[in-house]
Amino acid sequence: MNNNKVLHYYILSDSIGETAQKVAKASFAQFPNVTTVSHKYTFISNHETLQSILEDANEHDGLVFMTIADAELAKFAEKYCIKTGLICYNLIQPFTLEIARRLETEPSAISGAQYELSEDYFDRIRAMEFCLAYDDGKDPKGLREAEIVILGISRTGKTPLSMYLGTLGYKVANLPLIPEKEVTPILYEIDPKKVIGLTNSSAVINKHRESRMKEYGIGTGSKYASKTRVNEELEYAHKIYEELGCPIINVSDRSIEESASIVMEVMNLPQRI
Amino acid sequence: MNNNKVLHYYILSDSIGETAQKVAKASFAQFPNVTTVSHKYTFISNHETLQSILEDANEHDGLVFMTIADAELAKFAEKYCIKTGLICYNLIQPFTLEIARRLETEPSAISGAQYELSEDYFDRIRAMEFCLAYDDGKDPKGLREAEIVILGISRTGKTPLSMYLGTLGYKVANLPLIPEKEVTPILYEIDPKKVIGLTNSSAVINKHRESRMKEYGIGTGSKYASKTRVNEELEYAHKIYEELGCPIINVSDRSIEESASIVMEVMNLPQRI
Repeated sequence: MNNNKVLHYYILSDSIGETAQKVAKASFAQFPNVTTVSHKYTFISNHETLQSILEDANEHDGLVFMTIADAELAKFAEKYCIKTGLICYNLIQPFTLEIARRLETEPSAISGAQYELSEDYFDRIRAMEFCLAYDDGKDPKGLREAEIVILGISRTGKTPLSMYLGTLGYKVANLPLIPEKEVTPILYEIDPKKVIGLTNSSAVINKHRESRMKEYGIGTGSKYASKTRVNEELEYAHKIYEELGCPIINVSDRSIEESASIVMEVMNLPQRI
Repeated sequence: MNNNKVLHYYILSDSIGETAQKVAKASFAQFPNVTTVSHKYTFISNHETLQSILEDANEHDGLVFMTIADAELAKFAEKYCIKTGLICYNLIQPFTLEIARRLETEPSAISGAQYELSEDYFDRIRAMEFCLAYDDGKDPKGLREAEIVILGISRTGKTPLSMYLGTLGYKVANLPLIPEKEVTPILYEIDPKKVIGLTNSSAVINKHRESRMKEYGIGTGSKYASKTRVNEELEYAHKIYEELGCPIINVSDRSIEESASIVMEVMNLPQRI
């Protein structure tokens, strides 16, 4: 086994290369011990640039993750790779070819076409601004207009989850639960189907809180970060979740993307972005 | 040309299906007139589930965008497709197979491995919280600690761009420029290399402002949304950009992803997510 090999990989795109980057990341995640060197080239628009990048990739024996919408450029890259043996996949091509065959039509070959500005785009901006305006219970009135309402005690990750869902186009309001502070009555007026309760293991919350206290320059041993306090708060949160009858998501060992995906599944939300 | 055909597509993943979704979106973007029906199945963990999804996809003559890390499951899907002629690509497989060959090792076959929790993950959460704390010039002290400082007049998209960069793990502060309000002296103390000035065509800003005024229930014709005012503000902003010597990004006709990609390129920032 040769785990010390350094693997050069190339992200090539006539747009921003986001799709190719995702595939590269998912592929490399299967090889946690491999050292990779990333080379990223975006907005490629002519043969000369493409040729010189492919030559560089070939010299480094690189893996090329490519999304090129322009058929001429894609063909040029393909020819180069057949000739040299360079490993390169145009990730969208198998699909665009198949769709073109089925529809008896040609792809538009417009690079970055998925990012086009439209009414959806403005809706997305509005969603992101909404999430910011109604973060952390800043204004409980947001609960009425929100599509998703996220509840949780301190350090359960309400804010990052809301922000991420915001970038996906959903209007999210989040509300912190604190035993000493009565929850807004609005929470009991809105549709519980749009409410999600976050929970986590008390050990993880504890760790988060300790680290937050350190950032604030406060040593360990505060009441906020004590296990008794965390358990007390969790108990209080679960009482509220039960009253509302809302679904509960345990975010321990889950990334923001995974938690967001579960929220969308549980709430049966349509894909927007 | 048969543009009215409805195309069913399937996102299949043993993780959250984000990578497959990106590829699907990029592929369909090439066919703006095609009507698609999305079927998404995530966290697939056994043959029975996979079989029934593939059968459904086959009945609908669907296109299958797949990211399955588990080798057994992937093989099962592949066999099914060869037998039935169903169009299905396991997007990460060409790469994982090639990497495995080169490294003489097996992929870990852990689904969703790219989302693993780590110190990077906590850094990312901190970045998102940072962006929220220092949005819209809320606290000019954030300019010092920020990795990216975004300037712009009202409705140039500072907030969504900051939030998106935040989800990518960068600490961003943004500061609105208003002719009547003196900018914080901190702006002139920090490294201008980390400052980005946003600009846009006055027509687009005008449209944004009119729409914002409508949301507020204010009719057209306000000073805020007047062309003279927008031009006056843009002139003021460009004067400051010149003083600072910071790069300027024109965000007109650019999506958030594209603008973010340009920011990262201009500032030569490493990829984090």
